[in-house]
Amino acid sequence: MSIAFKSLPDIILEPMIRNAIAEDLGQYGDITTRAVIAADTTYTARLNAREAGVVSGMQVAEITFLLIDASLQVTTHIADGQPCKSGDTLMTIHGSATSILMGERVALNFAGRLSGIATMTAAFVAETRHTTARITCTRKTTPGLRIVEKQAVLHGGGFNHRFGLSDAILIKDNHIAAAGGISAVLERAKAVASHMVRIEIEVDGLEQLAEVLSKNIADVVLLDNMETKTLKRAVKMVNGALITEASGNMRLDRIGEVSGTGVEYISSGALTHSAQTLDLGLDF
Amino acid sequence: MSIAFKSLPDIILEPMIRNAIAEDLGQYGDITTRAVIAADTTYTARLNAREAGVVSGMQVAEITFLLIDASLQVTTHIADGQPCKSGDTLMTIHGSATSILMGERVALNFAGRLSGIATMTAAFVAETRHTTARITCTRKTTPGLRIVEKQAVLHGGGFNHRFGLSDAILIKDNHIAAAGGISAVLERAKAVASHMVRIEIEVDGLEQLAEVLSKNIADVVLLDNMETKTLKRAVKMVNGALITEASGNMRLDRIGEVSGTGVEYISSGALTHSAQTLDLGLDF
Amino acid sequence: MSIAFKSLPDIILEPMIRNAIAEDLGQYGDITTRAVIAADTTYTARLNAREAGVVSGMQVAEITFLLIDASLQVTTHIADGQPCKSGDTLMTIHGSATSILMGERVALNFAGRLSGIATMTAAFVAETRHTTARITCTRKTTPGLRIVEKQAVLHGGGFNHRFGLSDAILIKDNHIAAAGGISAVLERAKAVASHMVRIEIEVDGLEQLAEVLSKNIADVVLLDNMETKTLKRAVKMVNGALITEASGNMRLDRIGEVSGTGVEYISSGALTHSAQTLDLGLDF
Amino acid sequence: MSIAFKSLPDIILEPMIRNAIAEDLGQYGDITTRAVIAADTTYTARLNAREAGVVSGMQVAEITFLLIDASLQVTTHIADGQPCKSGDTLMTIHGSATSILMGERVALNFAGRLSGIATMTAAFVAETRHTTARITCTRKTTPGLRIVEKQAVLHGGGFNHRFGLSDAILIKDNHIAAAGGISAVLERAKAVASHMVRIEIEVDGLEQLAEVLSKNIADVVLLDNMETKTLKRAVKMVNGALITEASGNMRLDRIGEVSGTGVEYISSGALTHSAQTLDLGLDF
Amino acid sequence: MSIAFKSLPDIILEPMIRNAIAEDLGQYGDITTRAVIAADTTYTARLNAREAGVVSGMQVAEITFLLIDASLQVTTHIADGQPCKSGDTLMTIHGSATSILMGERVALNFAGRLSGIATMTAAFVAETRHTTARITCTRKTTPGLRIVEKQAVLHGGGFNHRFGLSDAILIKDNHIAAAGGISAVLERAKAVASHMVRIEIEVDGLEQLAEVLSKNIADVVLLDNMETKTLKRAVKMVNGALITEASGNMRLDRIGEVSGTGVEYISSGALTHSAQTLDLGLDF
Amino acid sequence: MSIAFKSLPDIILEPMIRNAIAEDLGQYGDITTRAVIAADTTYTARLNAREAGVVSGMQVAEITFLLIDASLQVTTHIADGQPCKSGDTLMTIHGSATSILMGERVALNFAGRLSGIATMTAAFVAETRHTTARITCTRKTTPGLRIVEKQAVLHGGGFNHRFGLSDAILIKDNHIAAAGGISAVLERAKAVASHMVRIEIEVDGLEQLAEVLSKNIADVVLLDNMETKTLKRAVKMVNGALITEASGNMRLDRIGEVSGTGVEYISSGALTHSAQTLDLGLDF
Repeated sequence: MSIAFKSLPDIILEPMIRNAIAEDLGQYGDITTRAVIAADTTYTARLNAREAGVVSGMQVAEITFLLIDASLQVTTHIADGQPCKSGDTLMTIHGSATSILMGERVALNFAGRLSGIATMTAAFVAETRHTTARITCTRKTTPGLRIVEKQAVLHGGGFNHRFGLSDAILIKDNHIAAAGGISAVLERAKAVASHMVRIEIEVDGLEQLAEVLSKNIADVVLLDNMETKTLKRAVKMVNGALITEASGNMRLDRIGEVSGTGVEYISSGALTHSAQTLDLGLDF
Repeated sequence: MSIAFKSLPDIILEPMIRNAIAEDLGQYGDITTRAVIAADTTYTARLNAREAGVVSGMQVAEITFLLIDASLQVTTHIADGQPCKSGDTLMTIHGSATSILMGERVALNFAGRLSGIATMTAAFVAETRHTTARITCTRKTTPGLRIVEKQAVLHGGGFNHRFGLSDAILIKDNHIAAAGGISAVLERAKAVASHMVRIEIEVDGLEQLAEVLSKNIADVVLLDNMETKTLKRAVKMVNGALITEASGNMRLDRIGEVSGTGVEYISSGALTHSAQTLDLGLDF
Repeated sequence: MSIAFKSLPDIILEPMIRNAIAEDLGQYGDITTRAVIAADTTYTARLNAREAGVVSGMQVAEITFLLIDASLQVTTHIADGQPCKSGDTLMTIHGSATSILMGERVALNFAGRLSGIATMTAAFVAETRHTTARITCTRKTTPGLRIVEKQAVLHGGGFNHRFGLSDAILIKDNHIAAAGGISAVLERAKAVASHMVRIEIEVDGLEQLAEVLSKNIADVVLLDNMETKTLKRAVKMVNGALITEASGNMRLDRIGEVSGTGVEYISSGALTHSAQTLDLGLDF
Repeated sequence: MSIAFKSLPDIILEPMIRNAIAEDLGQYGDITTRAVIAADTTYTARLNAREAGVVSGMQVAEITFLLIDASLQVTTHIADGQPCKSGDTLMTIHGSATSILMGERVALNFAGRLSGIATMTAAFVAETRHTTARITCTRKTTPGLRIVEKQAVLHGGGFNHRFGLSDAILIKDNHIAAAGGISAVLERAKAVASHMVRIEIEVDGLEQLAEVLSKNIADVVLLDNMETKTLKRAVKMVNGALITEASGNMRLDRIGEVSGTGVEYISSGALTHSAQTLDLGLDF
Repeated sequence: MSIAFKSLPDIILEPMIRNAIAEDLGQYGDITTRAVIAADTTYTARLNAREAGVVSGMQVAEITFLLIDASLQVTTHIADGQPCKSGDTLMTIHGSATSILMGERVALNFAGRLSGIATMTAAFVAETRHTTARITCTRKTTPGLRIVEKQAVLHGGGFNHRFGLSDAILIKDNHIAAAGGISAVLERAKAVASHMVRIEIEVDGLEQLAEVLSKNIADVVLLDNMETKTLKRAVKMVNGALITEASGNMRLDRIGEVSGTGVEYISSGALTHSAQTLDLGLDF
Repeated sequence: MSIAFKSLPDIILEPMIRNAIAEDLGQYGDITTRAVIAADTTYTARLNAREAGVVSGMQVAEITFLLIDASLQVTTHIADGQPCKSGDTLMTIHGSATSILMGERVALNFAGRLSGIATMTAAFVAETRHTTARITCTRKTTPGLRIVEKQAVLHGGGFNHRFGLSDAILIKDNHIAAAGGISAVLERAKAVASHMVRIEIEVDGLEQLAEVLSKNIADVVLLDNMETKTLKRAVKMVNGALITEASGNMRLDRIGEVSGTGVEYISSGALTHSAQTLDLGLDF
């Protein structure tokens, strides 16, 4: 079955991409290219990987070029979610040189960043291979780019957390404090929440976890900033009654150990806020 | 004199920030907070640094909170462009707990990223202290965030390159090839360019540089991917006739050496595409 | 505790309201009022109920008047979610006559429609009083008004279903057919779904229900177009293993009977697509 | 001659439809369909009427599907303004199953509502068949949907009133009171009104009507909340000097009688604010 | 009575003004002022007339400054629609120098252009003083500025024609030809037109005029490109049965003569497409 | 080589053109044409010049027609930047009569205004033929139309000044006064300006000019409101050290004389704020 889940409808992506194109073109467009390159020059450009990784951003890059010039011929060779080696050609673009040069930087800025996220996610996922733990992102994404950064996490083999504040309930320490404790906060949430919305609650110790379990309201428990030993005990306490998620300082070198605790999800903000750009270039 | 140059008018920043808020609030807002926290709860929240760095994004964070709730009282303690230590309180926000929690993540996502850029820029700038070389950014910015990322470079003590494709001419290797060489491309640019627009041209060797110098048209020369020794010779050849800029693989550990060549500008895409987020948090 | 869950942040509502104001003002504004009423005339206007019901749309009406003229003094007497009798004054608006007349129709069009939905919902809810069944809406809302129509359902005492296509999984007959049956479709969903997203599946008979139960993947089952007798058997089969929701032709006169089956949720598109406008007027 | 008057240019409708699609797709699109249906599945879907009525919204439904996926093949079988029987296929859509399922709910929400308005209008019009009276709508429309609701009234055989506040003058009781009476208000309107703008004035009795007639300024008189007997006398008094419009509590069961008074237009807000959705469905 | 008819609600004007500000500020704002003027410098600036005329654009200029900086104190001394002499101060702005300099050019570009239109209109109106003829504009306005240009015509003492294509019917020669003649075209228009919409028809000779009169459908007749003698005969033929409007090559030096024919309206595209900018400046 | 520099990417122009179309279509479109012309009528329309000039706005007119109806066949016969004689056909449009009539006024309003600017610019340029002086525009453009007005100046043979406040530094008298003199202001500018931004400074006398020259920071000097004799001396003083620009009351009859002074650029706001519309018409 094809990977439809890992692509998005163009109508969702286009406003974000138009915004990025407008930002780079400015009010007057590419004054260099228009000044020095004959309007009828055509190019075949190759979007090449200069290091190995996992590809993301090809759908975005393709839309970028086509919004600028619908007559460009764009062929993707390595699709979003696939691995690439250094030197691989990910995409070929053929047509007006002016159009290709106008889109080059925007396409590369997207694809480099998104492939970086997919690549970092894949590295985290690789550490969990011996287990059934899943890697998931957070809301620590780049303002304005959340939809594509979350897709990039999927492309890297990870899973998505809630999209934003309105699609799931996640009760954190501040909520618990303000509401007067775990039992009170869970009852309040249950009283108004839609039956189509999951409820997750953050706990920082086993005592809190016990209270969460006793209420039988939450769907997911966020085990925050726990040592591996404590995590293992927490997972045991939960014993399948809730989905378990570990978070807090989840560095790559700790993922193997944490995934061995039996926790189901490991979430990391670093996937989206600290991934290194994958080195890509456009060659003519 | 105050640092007006390093802030932007609110009317420019607001659309970007509204977009980011809408992304996180989704269609229904913060369903957790609305479910569990009494509407009249008030907080005093502190935006604290959890590591040392150079601050950026305070103006953006303040606008974020005020767009969500104009009655919040926001006080900035460490302004954009100033250094911070771990534990410093950068900003205090007082008012509706619901409003503060709604804005928390957006404000942190901006401020963490921008302070990361300012901090990395400051590290580059520190390497040039013994010289008059200036650090400058590129167009390798996050799509949609260029205005604030370029400000963050200023906050770190760097300088800005052109904003986008329409405010300056930068002739690269592809342009030179398509136009039939350096002399031809410079003449074409001169023939149509506004007198208010600077012309920069990229060269990859001293022979090209000699041709650029002989034409006396360009304002700036981009010395691309040169070894330090070659850079030194290039600067000497230019001898003040043009502004010199070095680019290509400008890692932090090379900046000191490069700035010693006498080159006036050193540009690095890493400042904006590979800065690590500065660790900030909101404490109640 | 105040009803924060039943209000929305202004920043979410404003674009929808601006759009409605622009629609009514047209390109030239209220040419009647500007022609015949002196600019300094002030009014005190009362938004009155002309029939009994449950109020919704007061927050929207207030924002409408304030977007047109921030100097208007708007006081809400009967808040969203409260019952009203014929003759009750819901809101008082004091200030420029021109401004009030400009906002009158937009405010009434919103408030009449939304109060109609709240009132119809309350009638459905009243039929469930002897049980713990909850009334919920669907996606059969007015294009462009979903956020406020779903709030109106809350104001009437109902609950919300998923907001749209992206915040929960709801597997319908077409999906089941295309995917090759219930087991296959549930496994596919589980393989990719976020742990923060609920999965609901529609069944039209007890055989399908048995298969759903055996897979232990779904959170919610939609019991579609079943007779009351069948519904009762279905609820018994489920026995708390899943959340149960009844839908399909849920007319007011059937709600009492259906809620007696033990089903937890009863969903009705009629709440939003066929509610009668509540008769409201603005009196000066 | 074709019914161009009853359709609108796509460029006017598209922003409204894009808004509705964005509302339903949310930030992540149709996560159910993408998860469980293979991306290359194709469907032929039929938009069928499940009750008899007058069709409206086919142009809007077609644009909806094509904005989501320009490669869909959409054929309209029963055009806007034509009657349908229960079971009739109004439109066929062929192509990507994913695309059709993404557009289904938005298309149905529009078409059901608009066909409901056209159907109710046709019922009103049928009551006037023995006369030359025309049925017309008001500004009591759904916020954001006025353009298509007014079209739906045309599709049902009715006529449109002014679009909004800026395209015609309609002087109501509050205007008369504030301006110091009928003569004064009409003179003020005449003093500034464009010659391309009609002037209508509301009267609630024959004395006011006499004053309106004596001024010879208005084009149209709104006979508000009059009994049939009074209406008949009013029409006689006017004797063709003005266009006559009856309004106020114009229920379907009264239209035949009212249209027999010789009044030229009968306006009803119920057409747009209280029409029942026509039952339509998409079958695969 | 105050001149409310000649001002527009801010909510209508703001999007146009925001667009103009964004155009001038560009992506980075006023880099000159931010670079060289201390952020806390305050100015009192005077918007002065450098030639005599009729003022328009003060409302727009005030909104411009306040959108840029809500803390500016703006006082209008000579309101829209009033005459000014060379040297008159029209408006005073006090506050941040940076803010005033950012808004200066946008405010002047609007006010100079609009005052030019008001001034030219007043010159046309002066030529009609001995008659009851009214001067009116056309749709030959600057794309994007129609609302304020039509207001400027009011400020100059003129009247407005229809706003655009959707608020009145104006049947021109091409419509007549395509529909098969005057009688046919008028009957088609009558068959579908709203009773709230005026119908105007263009004629280029007395024969056509006679046909228009015989149909008794149109409200207004456009007497196009007629010599004064013919115009006089046309007005006589009409004899008050229709509103008369003369158009086509209505130069200032011909207005006196044309207004003497008894024609009620004289329309001129030159008012909006060829008015000279009034010379205004901002002095500190 | 083709004139790519004088055209703009469609993606930049479309928002401005959509805005203009929306303004003219209003909320309901062309009610005249839809009422009286059969929907399947086709036309061939010719956009003809009714006076001689230089053409601009053909790209904009073409986009206008195609945005309204992508099936129209549009052929440009005389491209932007080319001269036309009275009677020349500039463009042919073939297709739906309704579509052509909907776009007619917007296309003509753009093309008439822009061709007027190109024509006036060409007249200025003609006066400089005996020299190397270049004619350039200012920021005194129509709000919202700067991009196309600046293109029109190029089409007339002129050059562009900076686009807006953010793409170049232009230090005026107020800046100099506020910063404490020419030397101070130039040093401040140099301290923060990007190396990709030109610095221009206005001087009103030779003493100021001497100070500018002595600082060796500015790229361009604006010689404001100088008599021809003084200009000549200024150019001599500069002696190629800076680019020279003359401004202030640069009427057509003075251009020949001014260009003879050796000044390199002559800027005139009149090109964009006071050009007469070129008389164009659409004939069927």
